Amino acid sequence: MTIKLYELCGAHDTLLFSPHCWKTRLSLAHKGLDFETVPVPFTQVASTEGEGRRVPIMRDGDTVVEDSFEIAKYLDEKHPDKPKLIGDEALTAFIINWTQTQLHPAVVQLCLMDIYNALAPEDQAFFRTTREKVFGMTLEEFHAKFPKTPDALNKALVPLELTLKKQDFIGGENPQFADYVAFGALQWLRIFTGDTFLPKDNNMARWLNALLDMYDGDGRKAQLAA
Amino acid sequence: MTIKLYELCGAHDTLLFSPHCWKTRLSLAHKGLDFETVPVPFTQVASTEGEGRRVPIMRDGDTVVEDSFEIAKYLDEKHPDKPKLIGDEALTAFIINWTQTQLHPAVVQLCLMDIYNALAPEDQAFFRTTREKVFGMTLEEFHAKFPKTPDALNKALVPLELTLKKQDFIGGENPQFADYVAFGALQWLRIFTGDTFLPKDNNMARWLNALLDMYDGDGRKAQLAA
Repeated sequence: MTIKLYELCGAHDTLLFSPHCWKTRLSLAHKGLDFETVPVPFTQVASTEGEGRRVPIMRDGDTVVEDSFEIAKYLDEKHPDKPKLIGDEALTAFIINWTQTQLHPAVVQLCLMDIYNALAPEDQAFFRTTREKVFGMTLEEFHAKFPKTPDALNKALVPLELTLKKQDFIGGENPQFADYVAFGALQWLRIFTGDTFLPKDNNMARWLNALLDMYDGDGRKAQLAA
Repeated sequence: MTIKLYELCGAHDTLLFSPHCWKTRLSLAHKGLDFETVPVPFTQVASTEGEGRRVPIMRDGDTVVEDSFEIAKYLDEKHPDKPKLIGDEALTAFIINWTQTQLHPAVVQLCLMDIYNALAPEDQAFFRTTREKVFGMTLEEFHAKFPKTPDALNKALVPLELTLKKQDFIGGENPQFADYVAFGALQWLRIFTGDTFLPKDNNMARWLNALLDMYDGDGRKAQLAA
C-alpha cells in the first residue's frame, strides 16, 4: 500500500508550502519511497487521522506518524538498507532548533502576508487568530514592522554558508535529514516570493540548487504562490 | 610518552583562556588521556612546533596535530575503544561554525578589553594589531560600541537552550565534541568576566554546570582573570 502524506495546502490544493512537509517529502524521496499526497488546508488538519494532529502526518499501512523528525526516525528504523536520513539524532535536533528559531522567523518576516493571501477564507481566519496571538499584534502590524530585505535571513544563514564552503551538504558528501530541514525554510520562502534572496554565487545557492534538482526536481517543480 | 598540549596563556602562564584550547582539554579528558599543558603566549605560538602554527597544538609522540576539530578526529581514530568524540563529522562542522559566527562575536563584545588587559605587553601589541585590522577600529572603539549586556549572547544561544530542554547534552545523553565546542565559548567568557550571564534556572546553566564539574572539575578549576 502506498504511503499517504498529509501536506498543508493553500486555497488551491496544489499549493503545498509547509516547510515541515517539505522535510518529509524529501525524506521519503531520500529513501526512494513512493507516496501519495493528501492536501489538507489549515482548518482540516485537526480532523485528519485523529484529533489534535499537526502536519506532516504520514500513514504507512496501519502506522501513523506525525512530525517530520519522528517520520525520519521511523523511516531510518524501517528501512535501514536505504541511505540513512539521520547521521546523529542529537546533533540533528540542534539543527532543527537552529532552523526554527533563526531561519523561520526571518522567512515569516519576509512573507507573512503572502502566506495569508494564498489561503482560503476559513483558513485565513484560523491563521489570523493563531498567529496574531503568537505575535501579539495584527498580521498587518507584523508585516509593516519588518523591512522586506533579506538582511536578517542572510545574517542568520552565516553558519550554513560557512559550512557549505567546505562540504557539499550539511550532511557531508550527501544530503541528510538536516539538509532537508534547512531546505524546508528556504523552499517555503521560494514558494511565496519566487525567490530565496541568496547571493547567486555563494555556496548556499549551489547547495539549494542541488537539492531543488534532486529526486526528479521535486523541489523545483513545486507550485509557487506568486 | 605523555601528550603535550600547547595552550594559549595570558601574562600569567596559569591563565589558560582560549576557547579552542578548552575544546581540546575536554576532548582529551573525554578520552581519558593524560596530558601536559605547555602554556604559550600569543607571540610565541608561531614558533611552536614549526612556523605558522595556531593553538591548540597537540604533540602525541612523533605526531603533531593542530586545530581542535582535527585533534578530535585524530583521537577518535587512534582510540576507537574510548567514547567517541564526534557523532557525525559533517553536522559537527555546522555546530563549530555556528559557535564561531554566533557565539564568539557575542563573547568578544562582552570582554575584549578584559582579554587585552590579561596579556603581557608584547602580546598586547600583537593582539591590538591583529584585532584592530579585523575590526577596522581600535580596541577601545570596539569596546565602546557594544553594550555590556548579555542580550546578544542570549539571543544567539536560543537554539542551544531549546535543544537542551529535551536532551542533557548537545551530543544527547552524553557530551560529544560538539558540547565542548559550545562550552569553549562560555568558558572563555567565564574566565574573563567571572560569569556566563546565563539565567540561573535555564537548561544551558544546568548543562554548563555539568560540563564544568566533569573530569574532576577541570573546567571549574580554571584560573579566572578577574
